Amino acid sequence: MALEYEKQLATHETGIPGLVVVDLSVHGDNRGWFKENWQRAKMAGELGLPDLRWVQNNISFNVERGATRGIHAEPWNKFISIATGSVFGAWVDLRAGSPTFGRVYTCVLDSSKAIFVPRGVGNSYQALEDGTAYTYLVDAHWSLELKKTYTFVNLADPDLAIEWPIPLDQCEISEADKNHPMLEDVVPMQPKRT
Amino acid sequence: MALEYEKQLATHETGIPGLVVVDLSVHGDNRGWFKENWQRAKMAGELGLPDLRWVQNNISFNVERGATRGIHAEPWNKFISIATGSVFGAWVDLRAGSPTFGRVYTCVLDSSKAIFVPRGVGNSYQALEDGTAYTYLVDAHWSLELKKTYTFVNLADPDLAIEWPIPLDQCEISEADKNHPMLEDVVPMQPKRT
Ligand SMILES: Cc1cn([C@H]2C[C@H](O)[C@@H](COP(=O)(O)OP(=O)(O)O[C@H]3O[C@H](CO)[C@@H](O)[C@H](O)[C@H]3O)O2)c(=O)[nH]c1=O
Ligand SMILES: Cc1cn([C@H]2C[C@H](O)[C@@H](COP(=O)(O)OP(=O)(O)O[C@H]3O[C@H](CO)[C@@H](O)[C@H](O)[C@H]3O)O2)c(=O)[nH]c1=O
Repeated sequence: MALEYEKQLATHETGIPGLVVVDLSVHGDNRGWFKENWQRAKMAGELGLPDLRWVQNNISFNVERGATRGIHAEPWNKFISIATGSVFGAWVDLRAGSPTFGRVYTCVLDSSKAIFVPRGVGNSYQALEDGTAYTYLVDAHWSLELKKTYTFVNLADPDLAIEWPIPLDQCEISEADKNHPMLEDVVPMQPKRT
Repeated sequence: MALEYEKQLATHETGIPGLVVVDLSVHGDNRGWFKENWQRAKMAGELGLPDLRWVQNNISFNVERGATRGIHAEPWNKFISIATGSVFGAWVDLRAGSPTFGRVYTCVLDSSKAIFVPRGVGNSYQALEDGTAYTYLVDAHWSLELKKTYTFVNLADPDLAIEWPIPLDQCEISEADKNHPMLEDVVPMQPKRT
């Protein structure tokens, strides 16, 4: 997929409140390219994204096109972007009481496009290229213990009707991800206790 | 290059005070792998790295094996790691008054090995694989203006005698990086004014 260079840094609404797509500026040259993947003053300042303190930076690497992960809503915020390759991403509002509960947003992310995913919005993606590296920042520490507090929903739920570019039965998927409940059986994520 | 999985998170000294190599734990599975590239509680807590607030996350992508960048000492700290591919890295102490001024440390970084580079230590790398994606966190905002305050030294300086795996005359290098001074002409980086 051809990468678009020198886009103006900008945000786009998605129809799910708080879920925001971000155009990144990628600078190409003789060596390859360079980008500011997160820049606090510009993104939390000018663009108006939440000014969070990121405590983890995670990378997931997908050997083959088709690897699919999700759908996971976790009790923290994420800023997701692509180091190399591209993904088809799908997000589902799983927040208790949200007027857009169950709404789905999908788009393709490559190195020039990132997304801010608020706490309680389910996250998933399918790698569109071999060797896709997916990187994200989160504002709370993960632990195996906390997994009990996630809200999961099934990638294949017909009510969500996500049009995965590569049929799921041809994709590498973890055993855990094959067994998540359908939307109608999901326990929505409650707002953060304060 | 074969990636080593499930290493124990650990630090290693380098002979340059404050420059610390970090073994990362990379978890492999049927889809590819997952790693915590930065984890504040573990790295700034247990491992004793400085507990900085990262304000930028940058990625540089190298199309071809051999692309070489550096040597740049900047007025901020960096935590550097590899999303995919591998690099030969070289670091030079350029801090005014440092007892190890001019000392060089080199090693290979792949996705399972990161490095903490303190303010004033010159940073450089050569991509060892096509499609190498290099990612880093910094604790201050970059601007073109600030470039005047960097300390640069030449990749090819015979006094540094860095043994680049791929001879520099066969490598993609930026015009700026071809023209940095030799160590003897460098203006060392002064400590931060407080
Ligand atoms: C999320 C996370 C996982 N792990 C470990 C646990 C496992 O050994 C391995 C992979 O974890 P899994 O839960 O299978 O990862 P995966 O299905 O890719 O899902 C994770 O990564 C996804 C993106 O790849 C995120 O959207 C999910 O929210 C996140 O949970 O990494 C960590 O060590 N730290 C973490 O933060
Ligand atoms: C460092 C930096 C650069 N840029 C822009 C300026 C240029 O249009 C483009 C590439 O900048 P250059 O200065 O050529 O980047 P490069 O030679 O790779 O050096 C940078 O990246 C290196 C790693 O790739 C770092 O070790 C250097 O400290 C850093 O300066 O990115 C940004 O927009 N933000 C930044 O933070």
